[in-house]
Amino acid sequence: MSLPSAQLAALGLALPPVPKPVAAYLPAVKSRGLIHTAGQLPFVDGVLPATGKVGAEVSPEQAAALARTAALNAIAAAASVVDGVDQLARVVKLTVFVASDPSFTGQPAVANGASELLQEVFGDSGQHARSAVGVAVLPLDAPVELELIVEATSYPV
Amino acid sequence: MSLPSAQLAALGLALPPVPKPVAAYLPAVKSRGLIHTAGQLPFVDGVLPATGKVGAEVSPEQAAALARTAALNAIAAAASVVDGVDQLARVVKLTVFVASDPSFTGQPAVANGASELLQEVFGDSGQHARSAVGVAVLPLDAPVELELIVEATSYPV
Amino acid sequence: MSLPSAQLAALGLALPPVPKPVAAYLPAVKSRGLIHTAGQLPFVDGVLPATGKVGAEVSPEQAAALARTAALNAIAAAASVVDGVDQLARVVKLTVFVASDPSFTGQPAVANGASELLQEVFGDSGQHARSAVGVAVLPLDAPVELELIVEATSYPV
Repeated sequence: MSLPSAQLAALGLALPPVPKPVAAYLPAVKSRGLIHTAGQLPFVDGVLPATGKVGAEVSPEQAAALARTAALNAIAAAASVVDGVDQLARVVKLTVFVASDPSFTGQPAVANGASELLQEVFGDSGQHARSAVGVAVLPLDAPVELELIVEATSYPV
Repeated sequence: MSLPSAQLAALGLALPPVPKPVAAYLPAVKSRGLIHTAGQLPFVDGVLPATGKVGAEVSPEQAAALARTAALNAIAAAASVVDGVDQLARVVKLTVFVASDPSFTGQPAVANGASELLQEVFGDSGQHARSAVGVAVLPLDAPVELELIVEATSYPV
Repeated sequence: MSLPSAQLAALGLALPPVPKPVAAYLPAVKSRGLIHTAGQLPFVDGVLPATGKVGAEVSPEQAAALARTAALNAIAAAASVVDGVDQLARVVKLTVFVASDPSFTGQPAVANGASELLQEVFGDSGQHARSAVGVAVLPLDAPVELELIVEATSYPV
């Protein structure tokens, strides 16, 4: 298995810059060897590619692609509190909130967009426990928000 | 206090087999001495006994029973990453998502179905911090989804 | 930076008494050096100051004030499982659930009510990762529910 940084390059992906916090919070915090990221929206260069509820304005396929984007942002957030992405030892937990039309029950397929990226980048260490739930509405009318818990290699530091 | 395995037997309960992951995720992951489970639905032999929103198609009493079932599945998931249920030292956190009609505000009583099973199986070590929230819709139109954080006895391993 | 207890006093705030659990769960649990609190509602002396959905019956400004109140309750819950608020080393993660009208997308501004209190009380150690999501409905029709993960100073104990 290549290093995560090599896998990202092989996928043609680069970690985006981590936006500065817009309030009294941080992109991620490391404590007791675990990194908790903030909830990540599928921003691309500071813009949401789509808004609305999945199952209504947004298709499940679009939403899965947005989940992949949000996962890339989450990896960047986690990497920002250690010495880069290769210091992320394994992904522990992924929680995916899908802004859902009340009739839409395909949250797992949406979340797969994130899960698959994590496995592509981290290999076996990218396999994780996961929850996917359908919520009423998300910040800025984003279709997807997700957060990660990641194990850091170095501990205690 | 009996061992959790003895308590399960006394309750006439057996841990169900843990379903194989349907995507790039795992039933549970242990890291830094804490086990995070995936979100658990109230599957019984691979089937959801009921679907729909609590407060509409599903009664609070039904939903509490479903939460108990999902909690049994979560215990099985946690036990699958250590050497069985008796290696689960204590339950730390339970999060219960209740697919709710917007007028339904009785999520805590639904979550009690899970909390009570945890205490029956683990005794004082089953007492946990808990969040219960009402969400728009859950995967497969399940009425309840829940996840656990559990402390493993062995650490570090 | 003053101690958190001194900051609370300077803000004219006192930690409220922690309500007894109403079911088989606890206000907070410490494990592996991390404290997970239960979901906290904006109770003041056992009463919710407002109920309903944000963006409908409840304004964003009211909701931010309620989030501040719930955060004070969460600090009290976390402090109750160690030897007081000064044993809370740093805030790791804040998750804010906002009961939202489906058209309301301002969850971050609501969550700021909690984030700002954490920074006022804990200074730099109060900066945290955060998720804010809009949910269909919360227990007792509360407009806001939140939970914390906090690092305890003493570890292992």
